[in-house]
Amino acid sequence: MNPPILLNGKAISEQIKSKISEELKLRVADTAPPTLATILVGEDPASATYVSMKIKACHAVGIQSRSVTLPKETTTEELLKQIHTLNNDPNVNGILLQHPVPHQIEERACFDAILPEKDVDGVTTTSFGKLAMGKEAYFPCTPYGMILLLQEYGIGIAGKHAVVVGRSPILGKPMASMLTNLDATVTLCHSKTKDLPDHVRQADIVVGAVGKPEFIKADWIKEGAVLLDAGYNVGNVGDIEISKAKEKSSYYTPVPGGVGPMTIAVLLLQTLYSYQSKFSPILRAK
Amino acid sequence: MNPPILLNGKAISEQIKSKISEELKLRVADTAPPTLATILVGEDPASATYVSMKIKACHAVGIQSRSVTLPKETTTEELLKQIHTLNNDPNVNGILLQHPVPHQIEERACFDAILPEKDVDGVTTTSFGKLAMGKEAYFPCTPYGMILLLQEYGIGIAGKHAVVVGRSPILGKPMASMLTNLDATVTLCHSKTKDLPDHVRQADIVVGAVGKPEFIKADWIKEGAVLLDAGYNVGNVGDIEISKAKEKSSYYTPVPGGVGPMTIAVLLLQTLYSYQSKFSPILRAK
Repeated sequence: MNPPILLNGKAISEQIKSKISEELKLRVADTAPPTLATILVGEDPASATYVSMKIKACHAVGIQSRSVTLPKETTTEELLKQIHTLNNDPNVNGILLQHPVPHQIEERACFDAILPEKDVDGVTTTSFGKLAMGKEAYFPCTPYGMILLLQEYGIGIAGKHAVVVGRSPILGKPMASMLTNLDATVTLCHSKTKDLPDHVRQADIVVGAVGKPEFIKADWIKEGAVLLDAGYNVGNVGDIEISKAKEKSSYYTPVPGGVGPMTIAVLLLQTLYSYQSKFSPILRAK
Repeated sequence: MNPPILLNGKAISEQIKSKISEELKLRVADTAPPTLATILVGEDPASATYVSMKIKACHAVGIQSRSVTLPKETTTEELLKQIHTLNNDPNVNGILLQHPVPHQIEERACFDAILPEKDVDGVTTTSFGKLAMGKEAYFPCTPYGMILLLQEYGIGIAGKHAVVVGRSPILGKPMASMLTNLDATVTLCHSKTKDLPDHVRQADIVVGAVGKPEFIKADWIKEGAVLLDAGYNVGNVGDIEISKAKEKSSYYTPVPGGVGPMTIAVLLLQTLYSYQSKFSPILRAK
């Protein structure tokens, strides 16, 4: 067996960011650069870190940011008002509402208040529907980042059996839809799945999207499987027991440096697309 | 092993239709009844039959119909114009565009032109997104009919492994989403799936949604599986080799008299809901 190949999300994301940067340098000198508005509600330190990483990444490629921070007591109505303001601002190309928001807020209603044309984080119900129906859209950043990584390394998806562990609306579900549209046979597993190890053991592609540290065990992994780990738990630990599991894999994403940087790169890419008045391309097998 | 139980879609659909009929008899005497507009494009005899069955079913429960028939040369623009007219007509509660339309028409664009509030056939991208995200919506009639049939017979879905064969936008994909939201572990198979028999052999619930006569063979069926056959091919033949497969099943839908009548009952039910300005309820496990 060949040694496992590390899917270098950090390096690929840098390439994507360089291209964005180059493209923005070509714009007409007196036009405004693209702008991403970020909304952070409450004081969760991890969320604050994610938002500041995203803002820093914007600036590095020439995208402006507009930072909105709201107190943890914010109501759904107050957050909706902020979103409407940003929707109506012609200088804002994309809106990122950092997940999760405090419990008193109806997160889904707030996500869905974002105009699809500014939904560069790919979180609205409308964007999900378009993705599933094989239309152009903005895609949820983390799953689309994983797809781009597979494509960059020339890893075939069509005909493969993918097992996605986790069915969240912005991660597991859209990842399953994307893989289906790219001709994988997809099994979507979750907290109510019985015999999870048996499902994972059959997978050519395993997607960890459950948010529990090393929940997917090395001895569940089939020899030669491709491992995509979207988990990012306390202590730089993913959802897959990667230190042992990678030895059985053909390709694997490290944590950190795998899926995380791709998520940010896709956010920037889709902000650029919005600025250019286009969507991400239809995802379908060739 | 207990003998297999026939899932009597014909009988259950009659119960649903009786309830609709009763409910409509209670309405204030001088208000107009609900109206379903049907659009048939071209001369496909099967499509013409389906539409006339649906219209007849409407009349039987007290729903009015508005029948639009268009020639097979109809363009996308002409069809869109018809849909807009029906969208804007306050007397029309629901719009059914019979699938499939002739090849020159962009079917997806036409489906998506239907107002979500009148999409009682559950075919729009918006309705699909809402279904997948666990919101109230109108659901595609055939998959929702299968779910209602399972629920009527008290067949548990949570924790079961469902294998859906076929990934069409108005049948296989939404069925997979519904089953996922009801806590099944779902594998979505299609024409590019390798080792289809191996997948089907693991299924507690098999959904035939592929439109090929007796494509799913009896010897692929696990003892005690639940068989749902949404196929309706020439000669009253479903997608599952049911005459033999039913002997291994715990429950099965016959063809005809299984899923077909449920499809029509759901169409009527959702037309009633639209008339009552409500959607079908959120599909989630208890």
